[in-house]
Amino acid sequence: MTEALAQGGVIGILGGGQLGRMLSVAASRLGYRCHIYDPSPQPPAGHVAQHVTTAPWEDVQALAQFAAQVDVITFEFENIPTATLDLLEPLRPIRPGRRALSVSQDRLTEKEFLRSLGLETAPFAPVDGPEDLARAVDQLGMPAILKTRRMGYDGKGQARIDTAADIQPAWDAMQGASAILEGFVSFSQEISVIAARGVTGEVAAFDPGENVHEAGILRETRVPARLNGRQRSDAVLLAAKILNALDYVGVLGVELFVTPDALIVNEIAPRVHNSGHWTQNGCSIDQFEQHIRAVAGLPLGDGGRHADVVMENLIGDDLDRVPELLRTRDVAVHLYGKPEVRAGRKMGHVNRIIR
Amino acid sequence: MTEALAQGGVIGILGGGQLGRMLSVAASRLGYRCHIYDPSPQPPAGHVAQHVTTAPWEDVQALAQFAAQVDVITFEFENIPTATLDLLEPLRPIRPGRRALSVSQDRLTEKEFLRSLGLETAPFAPVDGPEDLARAVDQLGMPAILKTRRMGYDGKGQARIDTAADIQPAWDAMQGASAILEGFVSFSQEISVIAARGVTGEVAAFDPGENVHEAGILRETRVPARLNGRQRSDAVLLAAKILNALDYVGVLGVELFVTPDALIVNEIAPRVHNSGHWTQNGCSIDQFEQHIRAVAGLPLGDGGRHADVVMENLIGDDLDRVPELLRTRDVAVHLYGKPEVRAGRKMGHVNRIIR
Repeated sequence: MTEALAQGGVIGILGGGQLGRMLSVAASRLGYRCHIYDPSPQPPAGHVAQHVTTAPWEDVQALAQFAAQVDVITFEFENIPTATLDLLEPLRPIRPGRRALSVSQDRLTEKEFLRSLGLETAPFAPVDGPEDLARAVDQLGMPAILKTRRMGYDGKGQARIDTAADIQPAWDAMQGASAILEGFVSFSQEISVIAARGVTGEVAAFDPGENVHEAGILRETRVPARLNGRQRSDAVLLAAKILNALDYVGVLGVELFVTPDALIVNEIAPRVHNSGHWTQNGCSIDQFEQHIRAVAGLPLGDGGRHADVVMENLIGDDLDRVPELLRTRDVAVHLYGKPEVRAGRKMGHVNRIIR
Repeated sequence: MTEALAQGGVIGILGGGQLGRMLSVAASRLGYRCHIYDPSPQPPAGHVAQHVTTAPWEDVQALAQFAAQVDVITFEFENIPTATLDLLEPLRPIRPGRRALSVSQDRLTEKEFLRSLGLETAPFAPVDGPEDLARAVDQLGMPAILKTRRMGYDGKGQARIDTAADIQPAWDAMQGASAILEGFVSFSQEISVIAARGVTGEVAAFDPGENVHEAGILRETRVPARLNGRQRSDAVLLAAKILNALDYVGVLGVELFVTPDALIVNEIAPRVHNSGHWTQNGCSIDQFEQHIRAVAGLPLGDGGRHADVVMENLIGDDLDRVPELLRTRDVAVHLYGKPEVRAGRKMGHVNRIIR
């Protein structure tokens, strides 16, 4: 697919959560239709997509049928099984490509890749057994954090090590999975850059946002981030470097720690990112449309920001605040239509315009 | 339905064109699902709605099934057959209600209603036959315009009378339908007010926009309209008067002619309105969300405007300009995904933010 996707074209999206939902809406603005593939029944994205396939990631026939019905494939989360991608790849273009996925699916590969670009990361060591862990703790010191190499998100698959007594329980928590120990970085702020790269190699970045996490889950993103001019341009250049190195097509989220000396890459996400939701009410073109434009082979949009915004996630019972939020001036409410409220579950978010 | 519609609730929309499409997207932001009812196959709104019923307006069984699957019913166009509404009304709440529909479905009833509120309209006379027409032309003078009382939109069902020679052809063009002759109003601008009323009677209006029509079709809306403070507040008060008189729930479009002495009501549309599309990029809460909020029994949103905007419709071959528009700074492109380009067909619109 070298030409831009024509009006009425179909974008296949792997994963039907809130990100797929908002991607579908953005695709509709550009005259496209979406087909969601998700193993769970009634995915939130299904409410705003023309087609939904409900089938396991291993269902060879369903995957082939899905591919036959779409023009291009993208995804809303990075932990798609390799076998699924192997099956889809010869059938339709997958954007962003396999390289970005393989890098971001494995925390060790990701850190080695970032270092290979001359970027800074937290100190780390691979851990494949209890002996590795003891050696890694010696090397990096405590506190440190042990993480599974694969399939972690929102603080899951992680164990903090503050004292020697935490070492064995941390290893046990990995349940035998390959892991990586990360040293702590002392930082003043967490920021993220949401950047996009188009099929022709053009790059566009949104203004960096400043993130507040609670219990491993993003609570709030504020734009503009408190950065000086040098840090702001460094953050964007660094994101562009990653995009170019991966020959990337689509939107990428880059989480960074800000220290007095440097910007340290925490992690990258090869997809639209929770910390980019503010763009829905702060920009003419939001991150979801930017991603769809890239995936469809359209020119990237103008990511200029017209307002200061605070994005706040609505997690679990936060949903009870919606009636009040709906009445609040300068607040835009975005709900995901999830059938069940659960503690720690992202139910929606609000963007508050700061005048 | 006196309480607000709960998360996951289903809004039934009669009509699946671009207005239904953008209503569906707005409903998804508030955690609702939509079910579109439209006689034509593959309606544009179907791309972003969870369910679509394709059936004629006369299909009693399909209508009953549709009603059983939704919590509340709204519509994207006013020319819904009376029998359809008669069937649906006892089954589910219809918002806005029958009164607004019956007033706006008939140009004569509409003008009489507006006059009864003390509002100004163009001079008019009912025309039920050639003799009526001759008498009405005598009374109102020429030029004048003959319109069918019912089912007209985008300049259809209209014939202009400039000289006596136009009278008979104008009558013939009505094909025997009851009509209304309207005198011309000499105005400086055409503006419209997009206003909403909630279930509790609260009213909110967006800033009036100034419209440019070409060949009976809206070409452009600019906000702010060139109005003095008095005209601006009069326009909004007048819209509120109409909303209250109709005990209205939802968004209403009011088209006005501006003369040195007065605001003259051209017509009202009991639905979201093409001249309100600018709100998508000029406000935190757009007209589509405002309508869904009202229909769902939620509080109305803050309609404050954060930017000056020019909305331009993309009609027929204007679609060829999309590649260039996608590259233009401060332009947001909205396409409707219609399968076929036809002359005079609205294919999309763009909102240009003016800085």
